Amino acid sequence: MNDVALGEIAQALGGELIGSAALRITRIGPLEGATPSTLCFLSNPRYTSQLAASQAGCVIVAPAFREQAVQRGAAIVADDPYVYFAKLTQWWARRMLPTVPAGIHPSAVVAATARIGQNVRIEALAVIDDEAEIGDGAIIGAHSVVGRGTRIGARTRLAPHVSVLDGCSLGERCIVHSGVVIGADGFGFAQEQGRWVKIEQLGGVRIGNDVEIGANTCVDRGALGDTVIEDGVKLDNLIQIAHNVHIGAHTAMAGCVGVSGSTRVGAHCTIAGGVGIAGHLTIADNVHVTAMSLVSRSLLKAGVYSGAFPIDDNKDWEKNAATLRQLHALRERVRALEKKLK
Amino acid sequence: MNDVALGEIAQALGGELIGSAALRITRIGPLEGATPSTLCFLSNPRYTSQLAASQAGCVIVAPAFREQAVQRGAAIVADDPYVYFAKLTQWWARRMLPTVPAGIHPSAVVAATARIGQNVRIEALAVIDDEAEIGDGAIIGAHSVVGRGTRIGARTRLAPHVSVLDGCSLGERCIVHSGVVIGADGFGFAQEQGRWVKIEQLGGVRIGNDVEIGANTCVDRGALGDTVIEDGVKLDNLIQIAHNVHIGAHTAMAGCVGVSGSTRVGAHCTIAGGVGIAGHLTIADNVHVTAMSLVSRSLLKAGVYSGAFPIDDNKDWEKNAATLRQLHALRERVRALEKKLK
Amino acid sequence: MNDVALGEIAQALGGELIGSAALRITRIGPLEGATPSTLCFLSNPRYTSQLAASQAGCVIVAPAFREQAVQRGAAIVADDPYVYFAKLTQWWARRMLPTVPAGIHPSAVVAATARIGQNVRIEALAVIDDEAEIGDGAIIGAHSVVGRGTRIGARTRLAPHVSVLDGCSLGERCIVHSGVVIGADGFGFAQEQGRWVKIEQLGGVRIGNDVEIGANTCVDRGALGDTVIEDGVKLDNLIQIAHNVHIGAHTAMAGCVGVSGSTRVGAHCTIAGGVGIAGHLTIADNVHVTAMSLVSRSLLKAGVYSGAFPIDDNKDWEKNAATLRQLHALRERVRALEKKLK
Repeated sequence: MNDVALGEIAQALGGELIGSAALRITRIGPLEGATPSTLCFLSNPRYTSQLAASQAGCVIVAPAFREQAVQRGAAIVADDPYVYFAKLTQWWARRMLPTVPAGIHPSAVVAATARIGQNVRIEALAVIDDEAEIGDGAIIGAHSVVGRGTRIGARTRLAPHVSVLDGCSLGERCIVHSGVVIGADGFGFAQEQGRWVKIEQLGGVRIGNDVEIGANTCVDRGALGDTVIEDGVKLDNLIQIAHNVHIGAHTAMAGCVGVSGSTRVGAHCTIAGGVGIAGHLTIADNVHVTAMSLVSRSLLKAGVYSGAFPIDDNKDWEKNAATLRQLHALRERVRALEKKLK
Repeated sequence: MNDVALGEIAQALGGELIGSAALRITRIGPLEGATPSTLCFLSNPRYTSQLAASQAGCVIVAPAFREQAVQRGAAIVADDPYVYFAKLTQWWARRMLPTVPAGIHPSAVVAATARIGQNVRIEALAVIDDEAEIGDGAIIGAHSVVGRGTRIGARTRLAPHVSVLDGCSLGERCIVHSGVVIGADGFGFAQEQGRWVKIEQLGGVRIGNDVEIGANTCVDRGALGDTVIEDGVKLDNLIQIAHNVHIGAHTAMAGCVGVSGSTRVGAHCTIAGGVGIAGHLTIADNVHVTAMSLVSRSLLKAGVYSGAFPIDDNKDWEKNAATLRQLHALRERVRALEKKLK
Repeated sequence: MNDVALGEIAQALGGELIGSAALRITRIGPLEGATPSTLCFLSNPRYTSQLAASQAGCVIVAPAFREQAVQRGAAIVADDPYVYFAKLTQWWARRMLPTVPAGIHPSAVVAATARIGQNVRIEALAVIDDEAEIGDGAIIGAHSVVGRGTRIGARTRLAPHVSVLDGCSLGERCIVHSGVVIGADGFGFAQEQGRWVKIEQLGGVRIGNDVEIGANTCVDRGALGDTVIEDGVKLDNLIQIAHNVHIGAHTAMAGCVGVSGSTRVGAHCTIAGGVGIAGHLTIADNVHVTAMSLVSRSLLKAGVYSGAFPIDDNKDWEKNAATLRQLHALRERVRALEKKLK
């Protein structure tokens, strides 16, 4: 089954369908390069100019673009075309992609004391340790490791090569991508005569429902209490979440972010790529930090925060950066001028 | 065995115990939320106010806090409560956590020419290649790979999913966390008519004793000589150590640091999270670099160094960043004013 | 065979050999510490002073250094000593390092429907999924996973612990290092009433020929179209390539770089360590970005670009950073002074 009738989509996902329900759709795609069997969406007004020219079979648009869309062919009118599109991709994946059957691959190593739910899929060479618990409908990818006593919630999916180490828990419907490490030791040492004395990390990691964690991201176990990630949090790739961090519900972090130990990030925050957040801070709900900023103090008020050097031609940057190293002195010179002129 | 007498702890770790040696301790925890069977510590004077209010069964304190601590219940007086606490966590982990038995899991793939020491544990699906050497009491985690001719020292522990590739060596009592890659090729190319010609990386990686390496950190093999990490170095997660880097003893680096090729970092340095260090530099002993700084030149004197843009409200940042791009011009204007006023 | 005659090298790689072709070479090494059986190269004029003092058996030099080199012993004169050296390392690796035989390790899990070429090596515990295609002479490292329908080109090498997930393709002669994840989901969500709605990532990853990808680097699959990496691209370790990024041929990126979604990077660019590139941008061919810069806008002209805070003593940095937060106000004060003086 490689195509589907437009009417079937509208029936499943709602919206007002204008045009032929019988139109066959073979793919979802961008306006540019679309063919008469492509279903597109328009959510960013920036791309409105592409609308008229596109060969798309059907376009999902907001009510405001109804007229423009109808002039060129079939349309689905939806309140939020981007959310509609997101749900369409989910429907599409369920409907059009091959499903993977439940079952335990014979090469997997599953401890006798592990508790495996109904309809679980455990792929080749996965390792499930003693007393681990895998919820109904969960998928454990090839080569993934579930540690001793660790709990994986129902319908959660681990991609290949995931490590969820001892004594951690993941909620339901989570998606964990390849290379993720959950429950490695936090980075904790006391210093004694110039040497580091390890603080054993005795806590765990507790992750809520509907959390997604990107490839090669790390979430360390807590030193004494647990590291906590609440429901609906989305973490991109190559993120570092240190021990005893607490991330509030529905916060999203882009790639290469690092959050240091014991920091509390609020709910509904967005942290852009490459941001670093120092330790022992408090970040309020609804804080948004732009790319590559260093959050060096608590941010107790909702808002947008930034702190990155503006990029420039190397030559101009060199001059400005050199002057920056004397900025305090420059201010003193301005002060002196001001005095003189008074 | 889920609890232990306070006296047993004091006997094992020293310090002056004030109060009942018979008191049963069930956990180590922070002052906040402690119960009468929790053992706490006070090392940061910031938390002194929590001392009186805490329900903790016993608190480890410095001599200066003896009076305050005794007023509220049992106490252990130690010169450095944080070091005491660190050693306590180690004792606790040895005493209270389940031990893992030695032995080679039947699913592990161990080359006939590998030399395996006494009391080694090789977990499920680990791969030990030809001529590799595993020291006494070492633990090789599930799915870990030890390359051809690679030497793992006595009592070193590899977590699951570690790769130590061909011809590398790790010392004794090291801890290597999941996803670590030791001995991948350094990033070396010559350019010929716009194309990159690979420089084969013929060196190895030599790591000393008591080194700890965090999850998903990479230590590349040298181009000709070796990449070297000396005794007692502690690396956090997601760190990049390029080819032919040399890190001096007891230096610690926090998460997401990158050290470029052939740079020499001294001993007893601390490099905070997200710092980048350029290639072919020399960093002296006892250098401390604050978070997300770019070390673009050698730092030949001990000290504290910084270089990150201060975070601000996005609106203020935008104005300041825009002005920063004209900073050199601004200095010229100040100069002109100064001339005029002379 | 642990040494080789100098003449054999010159015969294989060209260049003008001055001195005894019979000289035995046991290693390639730096000038410093070289012995009479070491073959060195001089490409950076900075090291010219080391030339006379070195004990090296032979030195590869550019024509301009012929006289100086000959005065001290054998030399190979080559137009570009660094390219010569690169090719020498390749010849050396082929000639002097043990070769690995083709064959499928009995512990590997290879789907019946996978198509495996001639002379392929599949190492222990690798997993090759349904309909995957492995080209002639490819090497699949221990524990690596090749997803359903994924194509690995001829003579491409995956190190241990690589994940190339479903529906991706790699060209010929690529080298992929341990921990790399190709084809994890891009980070795409729509927001609906404060919650994130996943956008299923329906595209793939297409990688050209002669691409090298460093340890623990991630290349996400596209949302609708594919993420594309063209021929000859070199990526270092711990890099994040987001969905639908397009990287032009022969571009090189150093460690810890992050490229956000849908950005197009040109050909022949060099992106230094720790750089972040925002999403939906266009970077022209032959753009060079220095370390830890944030590329927040398109760079449509070839050139060198920078944007990092200059490192300083922490005390000076603190004063300058504090002033920086009032830079816009400072400019206004200068403006006021200028007015007054007019």
